[in-house]
Amino acid sequence: MIISIEKGFPEAGIEHVTAFLQAHNTHYHVANLYGRQVIGFEKELSPALVEELRLMPGVEDVIPVSTPYKFASREWKTEKTSFHVKGEEIGGNELTIIAGPCAIESEEQIFTIAEHLHRSGIKFIRGGAYKPRTSPYSFQGLGLEGLKFIRQAADEFDLRVVTEVIDLNVLDQVYNYSDILQVGSRNMHNYYFLKELGKIDKPVLLKRGMYAKITEWLLSAEYILTGGNERVILCERGIRSFDDSVRNVLDISAIPLVQQLSHLPVFVDPSQGSGIRSLVNPIAAGAVAAGCDGLLIEIHPNPSTALSDGPQSLYLEQFTHLTQKLAPVAMSVGRNLSLKTKIFAK
Amino acid sequence: MIISIEKGFPEAGIEHVTAFLQAHNTHYHVANLYGRQVIGFEKELSPALVEELRLMPGVEDVIPVSTPYKFASREWKTEKTSFHVKGEEIGGNELTIIAGPCAIESEEQIFTIAEHLHRSGIKFIRGGAYKPRTSPYSFQGLGLEGLKFIRQAADEFDLRVVTEVIDLNVLDQVYNYSDILQVGSRNMHNYYFLKELGKIDKPVLLKRGMYAKITEWLLSAEYILTGGNERVILCERGIRSFDDSVRNVLDISAIPLVQQLSHLPVFVDPSQGSGIRSLVNPIAAGAVAAGCDGLLIEIHPNPSTALSDGPQSLYLEQFTHLTQKLAPVAMSVGRNLSLKTKIFAK
Amino acid sequence: MIISIEKGFPEAGIEHVTAFLQAHNTHYHVANLYGRQVIGFEKELSPALVEELRLMPGVEDVIPVSTPYKFASREWKTEKTSFHVKGEEIGGNELTIIAGPCAIESEEQIFTIAEHLHRSGIKFIRGGAYKPRTSPYSFQGLGLEGLKFIRQAADEFDLRVVTEVIDLNVLDQVYNYSDILQVGSRNMHNYYFLKELGKIDKPVLLKRGMYAKITEWLLSAEYILTGGNERVILCERGIRSFDDSVRNVLDISAIPLVQQLSHLPVFVDPSQGSGIRSLVNPIAAGAVAAGCDGLLIEIHPNPSTALSDGPQSLYLEQFTHLTQKLAPVAMSVGRNLSLKTKIFAK
Amino acid sequence: MIISIEKGFPEAGIEHVTAFLQAHNTHYHVANLYGRQVIGFEKELSPALVEELRLMPGVEDVIPVSTPYKFASREWKTEKTSFHVKGEEIGGNELTIIAGPCAIESEEQIFTIAEHLHRSGIKFIRGGAYKPRTSPYSFQGLGLEGLKFIRQAADEFDLRVVTEVIDLNVLDQVYNYSDILQVGSRNMHNYYFLKELGKIDKPVLLKRGMYAKITEWLLSAEYILTGGNERVILCERGIRSFDDSVRNVLDISAIPLVQQLSHLPVFVDPSQGSGIRSLVNPIAAGAVAAGCDGLLIEIHPNPSTALSDGPQSLYLEQFTHLTQKLAPVAMSVGRNLSLKTKIFAK
Repeated sequence: MIISIEKGFPEAGIEHVTAFLQAHNTHYHVANLYGRQVIGFEKELSPALVEELRLMPGVEDVIPVSTPYKFASREWKTEKTSFHVKGEEIGGNELTIIAGPCAIESEEQIFTIAEHLHRSGIKFIRGGAYKPRTSPYSFQGLGLEGLKFIRQAADEFDLRVVTEVIDLNVLDQVYNYSDILQVGSRNMHNYYFLKELGKIDKPVLLKRGMYAKITEWLLSAEYILTGGNERVILCERGIRSFDDSVRNVLDISAIPLVQQLSHLPVFVDPSQGSGIRSLVNPIAAGAVAAGCDGLLIEIHPNPSTALSDGPQSLYLEQFTHLTQKLAPVAMSVGRNLSLKTKIFAK
Repeated sequence: MIISIEKGFPEAGIEHVTAFLQAHNTHYHVANLYGRQVIGFEKELSPALVEELRLMPGVEDVIPVSTPYKFASREWKTEKTSFHVKGEEIGGNELTIIAGPCAIESEEQIFTIAEHLHRSGIKFIRGGAYKPRTSPYSFQGLGLEGLKFIRQAADEFDLRVVTEVIDLNVLDQVYNYSDILQVGSRNMHNYYFLKELGKIDKPVLLKRGMYAKITEWLLSAEYILTGGNERVILCERGIRSFDDSVRNVLDISAIPLVQQLSHLPVFVDPSQGSGIRSLVNPIAAGAVAAGCDGLLIEIHPNPSTALSDGPQSLYLEQFTHLTQKLAPVAMSVGRNLSLKTKIFAK
Repeated sequence: MIISIEKGFPEAGIEHVTAFLQAHNTHYHVANLYGRQVIGFEKELSPALVEELRLMPGVEDVIPVSTPYKFASREWKTEKTSFHVKGEEIGGNELTIIAGPCAIESEEQIFTIAEHLHRSGIKFIRGGAYKPRTSPYSFQGLGLEGLKFIRQAADEFDLRVVTEVIDLNVLDQVYNYSDILQVGSRNMHNYYFLKELGKIDKPVLLKRGMYAKITEWLLSAEYILTGGNERVILCERGIRSFDDSVRNVLDISAIPLVQQLSHLPVFVDPSQGSGIRSLVNPIAAGAVAAGCDGLLIEIHPNPSTALSDGPQSLYLEQFTHLTQKLAPVAMSVGRNLSLKTKIFAK
Repeated sequence: MIISIEKGFPEAGIEHVTAFLQAHNTHYHVANLYGRQVIGFEKELSPALVEELRLMPGVEDVIPVSTPYKFASREWKTEKTSFHVKGEEIGGNELTIIAGPCAIESEEQIFTIAEHLHRSGIKFIRGGAYKPRTSPYSFQGLGLEGLKFIRQAADEFDLRVVTEVIDLNVLDQVYNYSDILQVGSRNMHNYYFLKELGKIDKPVLLKRGMYAKITEWLLSAEYILTGGNERVILCERGIRSFDDSVRNVLDISAIPLVQQLSHLPVFVDPSQGSGIRSLVNPIAAGAVAAGCDGLLIEIHPNPSTALSDGPQSLYLEQFTHLTQKLAPVAMSVGRNLSLKTKIFAK
């Protein structure tokens, strides 16, 4: 259940409500979400108790929510969540495109990409400075140096930075240099970590675990929301299956299903979601037609020398070509993809 | 490897080639595919032997094919396969829509649907007379009576019939009453059965097994092709995963991947591929944008009373609405969906 | 629900019961199982109707069964099913060992194996004459010739034959030459086929589909039982997973789980269930300790030249060694494995 | 490849070796493992370079290792790893039993269990103070208070403490109160975290991720080993599958397979590995017969009131019964399970 508190009601004024919940042995979370205080809890209270709650000062409504996640559900918040990141809307009618390399490899690499994005009319750059790698012998990312490179490149070319935070020990660093913090597939189940991300004031892009059920994914979002961070983006990136023809199987049904269950924006990563360059375009087009709110695309000036994920990275020209192909697809399902391209303006 | 025989070369004339293969212990299949005799085999022959083969009378070419399937591969046949079924092209630029109930339940039901399809400008009807059901206590289909119903309805409304054959014992029946024979997911691995379907002169729509790797699926197609039946349609219908949020996970990457590996047309079943009515539209749109050649859609005049698959069947009006939504999506990726609708003409 | 008819009650005498069920729109199956007539159906009847049924002549009991499968359930038949095949008990305290090659390759091969089994005190031989192979270019089995070879070898060395039937078109052949008919993993979902196996009077060993849920597997057994064949052996052979380290993941929990849900004997195939020779012994030992009723083991006089499944086949001496290792494991969990070995008697 | 340095060779003395590797662009890890300095790296060096290395002062051997993990492999370390924890051997001939509640719930609960373990002759207690829970509304563990309870209970009853560390922020706490630190399934892919565990001087029990391939699991162990912590225990706890009959499918083949690939001890958790109390005994017996080195068992004085994992927890008496059943199984495969039981001594 969720208790909505009236807008503007003093924070300290809800103590009688929380005391009441404690008296009835109810484990609850208070958060400040979407303009009001809200209190979420799982317990089913009796109609009489609900009525008592409803009559308390400051209580606007008590809403039963049938799903295990409360704040992430459409039952509670019926309108889609959208917000702005340095002037660019996410979750609105405009499709968001985030592109960049798997890993930041050098100043030159990231500046080349940033300039290309800028000319292609793209507003968001991605790139990992801390990379979760299966082998300790693989390139683990440039760390702080990489963060500085991507920030500088983004600032020069009017881009917003999306980058992964892999542990709380580097949270401060990543926070300082990024605009959206990405939680990777492997960390989606790391609840201690998610709780801390609920306390920050920057959006979190939460990738689906490669073996996470939809409900588990939304519960991970709930961990962030219960902390009070209302700007969560969900990102489908493919699930692990029995078939090694593709690196991951992109679960296209997750797009509409999650949008029906939750108010949060749903992005798709067709690069991770296949692992094969030649599949990125058709999968991206499919994801847009299925209604996704944004895309994450891996690109590289020279994929064959990439330190990670080369086989699934697009060449820069392929990427520009892709965005031009996606515009009419977006339009065919009532979405917009405006590319104020500067690439041919020169 | 594949040996292509010159067009028009007498069938009996290739005995020296097959004798040569036998002499070199090579297990081969001869088929008449796409206008010529072809001989497929898996063994890697030495360059010298290949040269000998190449010089034999009637031999047009000897083509190395790196995939386990030979006749199904793009390496052998680079152009896409297309063919006509009673005047309607499959595998061409026009998107094929096949719709109908999961199971034929009564004469009235199938005639209602057939008339609706006709008015919506659809050319193919589907419906099962023999149903593979997990439980022996579930409705198993009307059998021969059902086949007669769907044939009559199709003939009255200028439709082509697609229906499933579940065992060789009913092959003759199904053959007599249908235009395209469907092989269900559960029979994709039934190789004895597939061999027999290679001998018939009607197209086969081969659904992907719910746990079949792409290579296994294409090898199943190969069983049909080696029998000499060149008109195979592949149909992705969702794979089984760890997540019960959806009945099956539609593998959207299978569309472009199979189209790159094989020349055969690739269809998608978004009804089976999700099991949830509200997901059919976005998944269908996604499949079209990803480049599929056709769609199989389950519809029912009254899904709540359907004897099987009700929850994933569209209402008739929903279906018409869907096709109208799909036309611009098809156009946005350079495909066509012409609906010579008669529904508003009345 | 299941209606038990009194032992010895005339078959024709239950018409009033079936007429009553028809009058109440109940789809039912009548079978002759374990010494009495039984009628199974899925519908939940009201207490009043159940009472009416209970009072009908010949009705012994009406038993509610909560599982989708009825005749296969422990709720209906509480004692474990056991039966004899030419004097050897299956499903009793004695562990059953079935061994032999994946495919029958020659008269010599199968006689060598049969003699070895005989000397090792083994009573059952396996070997495929019709092989379901993923590729049409792979060895498909010797067919009828192979059946004759294994029958002769078995007869000479006092063995019982277990062999796979892959299609109804070869059922008569396989029936004539075998003592237990095996249904392969790929045919477990082939319901039309299973119904026919319900009509024969030889035991059926039903392998679990490589992607079958436990309930689906038991429903497949139900198809055979509803046909009236009460001697069904269930065989776990590994399920398909995301990890290609092993060919299949043997689901050890299936052994006790199925034994709790069903009265049917549960066998295990550690050869298919791993695909790696060096894992066969520990997995076999694990399966025995977990309580399985029998094992299927692939062996070959010369695995490196085997036409199929060589990497998972044991050498003959390895097999004998394995059985000697298994005897104390069986004993440690209260089971018996008596090997009246003749191998050292020479 | 792995370079072994002579025992006793000064730590500072290997700089010429590492300088050589750097000069040849090789990313390496130096560790102190099993009594000597070792240097691991992935790159394949030419025979000439290997020869140069071999001749350097202090270099004992240069060993090619074909697996992606080096220090975890049997190719490098052929003898099984064993070590003592406060006098009790792990990885030796004696089977290790670790038992306790899923979560520490109260002082009374954990003391009751500890006393019972002591009387049953068990030497290791488990119990979570920090619990990774899918829902933020579920009990998250007692934290530091719980750690103190389990430490006191263990000290009173001569037990060693195994408890989970879920984040680096609580590592110091968990380190101070435990003897073996457990890494849960969800953290197996958390490489940043694993690196830190490589720096501590207590053993780490590394659970397999619920969707981790064997190679990925061993690479996670490699992260700990490259940090210099040589005491890693691998624990199979079931993988996620398509079948919800069980919570997880215990991968029994992982036991022998990992033991063949790696020298590290392999434990099994039959409680998590099924999620069903009635399956714990047969699966535990199966795991022992398949050769596991130890078991983790969830027990609770009153499972029906447990705050987590009640359905899979054994009653205390069931647990004692289980250990008595396991002793002969262990013996049947040449292992020992000595239970210096004090339970009937009273």
